[in-house]
Amino acid sequence: MAAADIHHRTPEFRALYQRVLIQLKDFVGTKNDVILISSSGTGAMEAAVSNLTSPGDRVLVLTAGKFGERWVSLAKAFGCQVETLSAPYGETFSIEEVRAKLKPDVKAVFMQATETSTGARHCVQSVAALTKEADALLVVDAITGLGTTQFDVDGWGIDVIIGGSQKAVMIPPGLAYCAVSDRAWQRMETTKNPRYYFDLRKERKSAAKGESAYTPAVALIAALGAAFDYIAAGAGGDIVAGRDALIHNAEVVAEMTRAAVQAFGLKLFAPTAPAAAVTAVYAPERTDSGAIVKGFKEQFAGVIANGQGEMKGQLFRIAHLGFFDYLDTIAMIGGLEHVLQPILGRDLLGVGLKAAQQVYAKRRGTSLTQLLESDHRCSCGRPMAECSPTLAVVGA
Amino acid sequence: MAAADIHHRTPEFRALYQRVLIQLKDFVGTKNDVILISSSGTGAMEAAVSNLTSPGDRVLVLTAGKFGERWVSLAKAFGCQVETLSAPYGETFSIEEVRAKLKPDVKAVFMQATETSTGARHCVQSVAALTKEADALLVVDAITGLGTTQFDVDGWGIDVIIGGSQKAVMIPPGLAYCAVSDRAWQRMETTKNPRYYFDLRKERKSAAKGESAYTPAVALIAALGAAFDYIAAGAGGDIVAGRDALIHNAEVVAEMTRAAVQAFGLKLFAPTAPAAAVTAVYAPERTDSGAIVKGFKEQFAGVIANGQGEMKGQLFRIAHLGFFDYLDTIAMIGGLEHVLQPILGRDLLGVGLKAAQQVYAKRRGTSLTQLLESDHRCSCGRPMAECSPTLAVVGA
Repeated sequence: MAAADIHHRTPEFRALYQRVLIQLKDFVGTKNDVILISSSGTGAMEAAVSNLTSPGDRVLVLTAGKFGERWVSLAKAFGCQVETLSAPYGETFSIEEVRAKLKPDVKAVFMQATETSTGARHCVQSVAALTKEADALLVVDAITGLGTTQFDVDGWGIDVIIGGSQKAVMIPPGLAYCAVSDRAWQRMETTKNPRYYFDLRKERKSAAKGESAYTPAVALIAALGAAFDYIAAGAGGDIVAGRDALIHNAEVVAEMTRAAVQAFGLKLFAPTAPAAAVTAVYAPERTDSGAIVKGFKEQFAGVIANGQGEMKGQLFRIAHLGFFDYLDTIAMIGGLEHVLQPILGRDLLGVGLKAAQQVYAKRRGTSLTQLLESDHRCSCGRPMAECSPTLAVVGA
Repeated sequence: MAAADIHHRTPEFRALYQRVLIQLKDFVGTKNDVILISSSGTGAMEAAVSNLTSPGDRVLVLTAGKFGERWVSLAKAFGCQVETLSAPYGETFSIEEVRAKLKPDVKAVFMQATETSTGARHCVQSVAALTKEADALLVVDAITGLGTTQFDVDGWGIDVIIGGSQKAVMIPPGLAYCAVSDRAWQRMETTKNPRYYFDLRKERKSAAKGESAYTPAVALIAALGAAFDYIAAGAGGDIVAGRDALIHNAEVVAEMTRAAVQAFGLKLFAPTAPAAAVTAVYAPERTDSGAIVKGFKEQFAGVIANGQGEMKGQLFRIAHLGFFDYLDTIAMIGGLEHVLQPILGRDLLGVGLKAAQQVYAKRRGTSLTQLLESDHRCSCGRPMAECSPTLAVVGA
């Protein structure tokens, strides 16, 4: 980042920008154009709403947590008639309920791939199978999903999939990106909602010239390119293989974490559909989860997150994004044993660690395909392999 | 470091240099002048030999490893008559043997505080008690000892104690420093060995003006100042308390590591006098320790060191320098279980981790004094508290 103080209307920047846009296609796994926006992920969420809807449009939001509720707020802010299908926090929707709510006049469906606030995974493939046959566009917030979860963006027909810079790609916040389908580009020809900074068609035109429409976060874009180089370097220079290694890592350390906290006798907040991006755990009874977050930070100078909104105090969350790897995860579990032992009042030393070690021993050396084809099941009930196929190399 | 591209004959540099020299006194724990040299630690070892001896001088080297042997080579290179007291690798000397070798014509005694190649600790206090009453100066290589081991430099009468930048102070290699006693400064008035770049009296004169005699490694000096600020910041701004926290950390993680490898059934290379700086462990029978080093690096992208010289292949070494903390140590032990399990052919998962967790649970929250006054014993047989007293605040 420090080396990237270059002007954004120069050949140097254009070369960087074009390279990063190609890397983004590979990372997302799509032939669709990927648009890069200098904003947080919420900016790309707003872009999806403002570019794809007109006031009065009927839209369906699938919500089961804080980020699902953000779709509701955004769609209402842009004058949509919002239908919601809500699942309780920590759970996911039945595909039959989605089918029932997907009336012919629904113009777009908004959902999360993984709900960061609860640690639940939603089955994007199942929803995409419904929207593909309907007039509705499918918009997926995959801000914590990309790089932790497999998507066949073009094969399933995801119209807009959204990512951010600060999650699995491991750079500071400030960039969002979204891959946009032909169907979605066509919709933008007629939609009437106002947009200016987040005008996706304008960004697409500028990108064709190797530029951004407005002054971009140059240093972050350089960092994003460096992050993709790093991800690829770990897999023989292949960014797709590097991304799959990130996903494999997230799947394994998430499973280690679930095994450890269950060995402590704690309950997962999203047991039926746990995401690989983040694990949310109920605090022990009569314990404020803030005490666990604070104890861990004070003793080990490490970060475990509290619950968000009304879940604050009830649960704590452990991230598996980017290169939170085996070593980080084992260390975190070790520290957690010391923090939880006085709260639970029983000997935890080595208990979670052993459970996590056994998971790692079982999963190490597997390919991502083997991992997904093992005993994992998607929230929709199918084997995970069917909902998260290992993708062929796609992209530019 | 990146911000430190300042010229070394300017007020800005002089202010930095003087500040770092004061911090060094606090860190070493001495009222003696501390001389900073732009070289590796071996440069300061050479400075001690070339400044304190004349050709033909009889000197005594206490050696039990590769770095003890370096003293022998250096003293011979400068024409000294070298007496050696050798202990087998992994062991330390009996104080009675040192007393017997310390004839009245011995001009200087050279030793390590902790022998990095074997993980053994030598009792500096016991040797100092002998040299203090003799004509012999005591020179201690504490390159891995400072920041992991307690010394009462002035109280014990250590004439020269040597440290380096890349060990417990956690910055890149390239700087060495040594604290020099009045007795040693006086000796330099008459010694005849040649010295120029490592002329300590010349550096002392320059330091009095806030400068170094030759062009210094400016960026490393800025980094050293920043490292001391960091060490102090963790202890309410008190560099001595920060250093004691480093030593406490090293003692605890070294004990965790010893407990873990012994739980695996492996043998310590220096069981009677283990240093807190580094733990050396025998590889399992019929196993090249290089396979363990390589396996750890390949699987976990972490570094465990092989044995040095003739010990290569026989043992592996784990560092506890600087802020290798609880989290790093637990993670390293977890990884080691996976590397060692197929070699040892039995279930190790959780075995070393549990042993380490129990050590941490016992030691956490103790003060350094409590830790040293507990069940630790020095290699000389006395309680560790007597050989490593917690020092009062000293320095400028």
